Amino acid sequence: MSEVNIQDLVDSHVTGHTLQQPFYGDPDVFSIDRKRVLDRLWHLAGHVSRIPAAGDYFLFRVCGEEIIIVRGRDGDIHAHYNVCRHRGSRVCLDSEGRKSALVCPYHAWTYNLDGSLRSARLMPEGFSTEGYGLHACRIKVLGGLIFVCPGDEPDEPDGLDDACREYLSFHGMENAKIARRLELPTRANWKLVVENFIECYHCVPAHPEYCSVHSELKLLAAGAGMGSGPEAACRDYAVELDAWRTQVEALGHPCLEGTFDHGAGMTRMPIKEGFLTESQDGRPVSTLMGKFREYDGGVTYMAFNYLNYLLASNDHAVLLRFTPISELLTDVEATWLVDAGAEEGVDYVPERVSWVWDVTLKQDAIITENNQAGILSSHYQPGPYSGQEVMNREFTRWYLDKLSEQTQ
Amino acid sequence: MSEVNIQDLVDSHVTGHTLQQPFYGDPDVFSIDRKRVLDRLWHLAGHVSRIPAAGDYFLFRVCGEEIIIVRGRDGDIHAHYNVCRHRGSRVCLDSEGRKSALVCPYHAWTYNLDGSLRSARLMPEGFSTEGYGLHACRIKVLGGLIFVCPGDEPDEPDGLDDACREYLSFHGMENAKIARRLELPTRANWKLVVENFIECYHCVPAHPEYCSVHSELKLLAAGAGMGSGPEAACRDYAVELDAWRTQVEALGHPCLEGTFDHGAGMTRMPIKEGFLTESQDGRPVSTLMGKFREYDGGVTYMAFNYLNYLLASNDHAVLLRFTPISELLTDVEATWLVDAGAEEGVDYVPERVSWVWDVTLKQDAIITENNQAGILSSHYQPGPYSGQEVMNREFTRWYLDKLSEQTQ
Amino acid sequence: MSEVNIQDLVDSHVTGHTLQQPFYGDPDVFSIDRKRVLDRLWHLAGHVSRIPAAGDYFLFRVCGEEIIIVRGRDGDIHAHYNVCRHRGSRVCLDSEGRKSALVCPYHAWTYNLDGSLRSARLMPEGFSTEGYGLHACRIKVLGGLIFVCPGDEPDEPDGLDDACREYLSFHGMENAKIARRLELPTRANWKLVVENFIECYHCVPAHPEYCSVHSELKLLAAGAGMGSGPEAACRDYAVELDAWRTQVEALGHPCLEGTFDHGAGMTRMPIKEGFLTESQDGRPVSTLMGKFREYDGGVTYMAFNYLNYLLASNDHAVLLRFTPISELLTDVEATWLVDAGAEEGVDYVPERVSWVWDVTLKQDAIITENNQAGILSSHYQPGPYSGQEVMNREFTRWYLDKLSEQTQ
Repeated sequence: MSEVNIQDLVDSHVTGHTLQQPFYGDPDVFSIDRKRVLDRLWHLAGHVSRIPAAGDYFLFRVCGEEIIIVRGRDGDIHAHYNVCRHRGSRVCLDSEGRKSALVCPYHAWTYNLDGSLRSARLMPEGFSTEGYGLHACRIKVLGGLIFVCPGDEPDEPDGLDDACREYLSFHGMENAKIARRLELPTRANWKLVVENFIECYHCVPAHPEYCSVHSELKLLAAGAGMGSGPEAACRDYAVELDAWRTQVEALGHPCLEGTFDHGAGMTRMPIKEGFLTESQDGRPVSTLMGKFREYDGGVTYMAFNYLNYLLASNDHAVLLRFTPISELLTDVEATWLVDAGAEEGVDYVPERVSWVWDVTLKQDAIITENNQAGILSSHYQPGPYSGQEVMNREFTRWYLDKLSEQTQ
Repeated sequence: MSEVNIQDLVDSHVTGHTLQQPFYGDPDVFSIDRKRVLDRLWHLAGHVSRIPAAGDYFLFRVCGEEIIIVRGRDGDIHAHYNVCRHRGSRVCLDSEGRKSALVCPYHAWTYNLDGSLRSARLMPEGFSTEGYGLHACRIKVLGGLIFVCPGDEPDEPDGLDDACREYLSFHGMENAKIARRLELPTRANWKLVVENFIECYHCVPAHPEYCSVHSELKLLAAGAGMGSGPEAACRDYAVELDAWRTQVEALGHPCLEGTFDHGAGMTRMPIKEGFLTESQDGRPVSTLMGKFREYDGGVTYMAFNYLNYLLASNDHAVLLRFTPISELLTDVEATWLVDAGAEEGVDYVPERVSWVWDVTLKQDAIITENNQAGILSSHYQPGPYSGQEVMNREFTRWYLDKLSEQTQ
Repeated sequence: MSEVNIQDLVDSHVTGHTLQQPFYGDPDVFSIDRKRVLDRLWHLAGHVSRIPAAGDYFLFRVCGEEIIIVRGRDGDIHAHYNVCRHRGSRVCLDSEGRKSALVCPYHAWTYNLDGSLRSARLMPEGFSTEGYGLHACRIKVLGGLIFVCPGDEPDEPDGLDDACREYLSFHGMENAKIARRLELPTRANWKLVVENFIECYHCVPAHPEYCSVHSELKLLAAGAGMGSGPEAACRDYAVELDAWRTQVEALGHPCLEGTFDHGAGMTRMPIKEGFLTESQDGRPVSTLMGKFREYDGGVTYMAFNYLNYLLASNDHAVLLRFTPISELLTDVEATWLVDAGAEEGVDYVPERVSWVWDVTLKQDAIITENNQAGILSSHYQPGPYSGQEVMNREFTRWYLDKLSEQTQ
């Protein structure tokens, strides 16, 4: 699809409506997405506790690429493209493991954990290992979270700033460990996965379990971001929220409502009346994390960008990543975290920690695949967003602007 | 593939030979097929008895589209594209079922059975449900049979005329019910499925069961339409046919030999000597249908177009549809019908009713897939039709004319 | 991909490095490969003992085509495209079998085993069976081996000359029978399968079993062809080799080191000290073949071209074919041969005969698929060959020259 056609499609967008069909699955648009949007983002790859020791690694897949995330001898975490510099073979074959060096299984070219080439057998005279390290991928570790950027020019600002670090720290993310991971490969374009996550218009019809742990008023007034609901509901909810904030501030817990910009931002809100944490019955599911000394009944929403999130209760948290693989495939991964000192079976049971998001994400995968199926019809046409889909309106605008600014 | 190339391919056709390779599987040709041929046809979707009550529906798939065929509160049958007007989700997920309203599972936009939008929650001020009904698909119900046309300009004449209605009525199609349905997704271009069905040159080598219930003379003389066989055989068969027609007219049963035009038409012929119906042993397999008061040993062939057929004995009938899905996939469906008053297990056994066409269609699916496989070879070249493939000659001519008349 | 782009890619090749990414998987490059390289080669299809009697046949698949290899009434072996000249159906459906005639399962057009059309029922007056034989494929049978060339202009010289015939004869290939066949469909471009086979740089890290039956010195000095190793090793190995040759010549066995040209050639080398044959323990695995009267501990490497090989010990041999199917799929087949007079269970056990290459080829299939996966990354770039990959250097040069000479 040529530049001109893309710009025509962008220009034909009607504000407040869903995108034209080609944006939701055309392979040429996906190539452009990759170059102008996806390669410039910091994608959440996982939590540092997945690779605690030197040589521990896991493979992270994004946009058709495979990246080795590995902890080096010095404790630093590195990201390398999983492509041998000799003949191009995959170097690491298993999804995760521990290696003392990264040895290509084909001809035994041996790379140090930092990616530099340590040795290559029988090479011609004059060959130097310099310049033959694994291709590096940009990486940032922030408050225990690992982010990688597949391209050379990450967007600025990147949503990974000091405020972000402070919140992560308050929640004890550096001192957390993984209670459970769930992967849900979803046959849908990444934008549909994102659009599904950023609105709660579908919560009432589609997520009874999620609705059972959140107040009806909150879902109505703030489901799509603070103040997105009907006026009366918003007024009532503001009163409720103010009362809760007063209590929370008294405890010294953060409760700032951050602004959301380019999909990034953070906010804290109470769960449901009487709920200490986002669990099935509202009762604790693990030990308190980070700086929390008592439960305040709040949940922190952190959005690093439109594709990556942290949802943190006082005693557990869940990392969510929506990672594009191809135009019609997106990896969804949830990583539930508890305090590093909590003991499985004693302090927490993974199924209790993960209950609400496990069931909700599985529902969303089905919803999103059905959304994709309908959009591929010749009779799909962009439809109007509801009042509870204000973030979708912002997301489509942001996305189209990203495409446009780079054609000029 | 450009218009010019298509016209070159059309022009290079040698009359009396099969088509050039690209017509049998090229995706660009399929796009053109869709626009110029398939979107202009009335496709047989099924029998009204599949959805007897208000809210009963089934999904009909044609050319990559999914259409909801649903009975409304007023008893009328409607056809809607299965695409929500809000965000484009599939509205109905199961292949068939019963609904009091068509509620999108995503955000609960609720459509009436006639497709109009009944309600949409929390939409911005000024939003009107008017103009947001499900996209309608053209539909015709004729003598109990449901036809849909995916495009806006159906071909005229459409083969669904008064003569057709009269025959359907004589056979009691409005008062029929489904004894069995069989779906055979066939990995072949729709033209190969059609070409397989419209000739009986392959009956002797490939369909021993079918041949066991039809007279050898008939297969030879009229296998490819009346008078298509060797002269002597045709002369002999004309005598046989005349004798039977005299008997049938005496009973007041129809026996007109209709002309076939654009693949549409109808005719009646005797089955095999001594056979009352098209069953394994020639004996009845259900109660008499429609206006029949006694068996006349005939079978009625009705062709609505090249893709859709009714084959009716005196006590049962089978609807056949060959429905293109993509360039290399065609859905074949058989629906066996008996009188609505017949009782399963008492008056009929589905396996006896469906015996001959069940085995024959399964053989044809394999044959046609092997035909497709060979045609994809670089060494396929158009071959000459036999005398028993006169309808193939007409079909290829008709098809190429449809492509040509629209390029001018 | 246009001619110009191909030439640009060819010109950007750096000698001594692997090829640019598009050569390893782009579908347009594969089309060009087919026309300029693959359709001009004689592909090894199998051994004559697979079809001992008239009417015995098997299907050989190459570059998306299906070819019937069948023994005629006169004992000659024929190759026909598996496409009926009437409507294009596959004529033979099973992978192998015995037929008295080749009868199309669709309309019973009947071909003689030599491919000529014997009869076609009910064809119009004036139709002649002349000119409607199955399309023939070029075939050559040499020393019991069947080769086919899919195109009309086979490359010259073709590597199938008198010297080749003589070696095959000495090894008794005409009087051999199949002990076992193994098919390994490999999801990789054919060039990666070839490049894997023509170097032994990967033997030490990847093939412990293979290395256990060959001397360390030989692998180092001659793994990539005679004299490809470090100088000192080559000198030592030359001494070892000379000693063995003297013994072998005394026995009257061939031991000429042929030159390899365009990937074709042959050579004999000793296995490991004390090994009589290429078996797990070096002890015989069947009866002596051909003109051998006693074991000389050698193995003959015959390369008919880059894609087809014979590896012959004194008492068994293995045919290897790497047959391109599509840009990312290559069929690998090994056929182990023993003397026709050897009795299974008495003189040989198939698992013992096939041990070393069975395990080695299965390792190579995995290696090659991982190589392909890495090469598809955006971060793959051509890498430098080692000293043990001199044949890869020659292969890439040969391949690029084949592309270039035909653009001029």
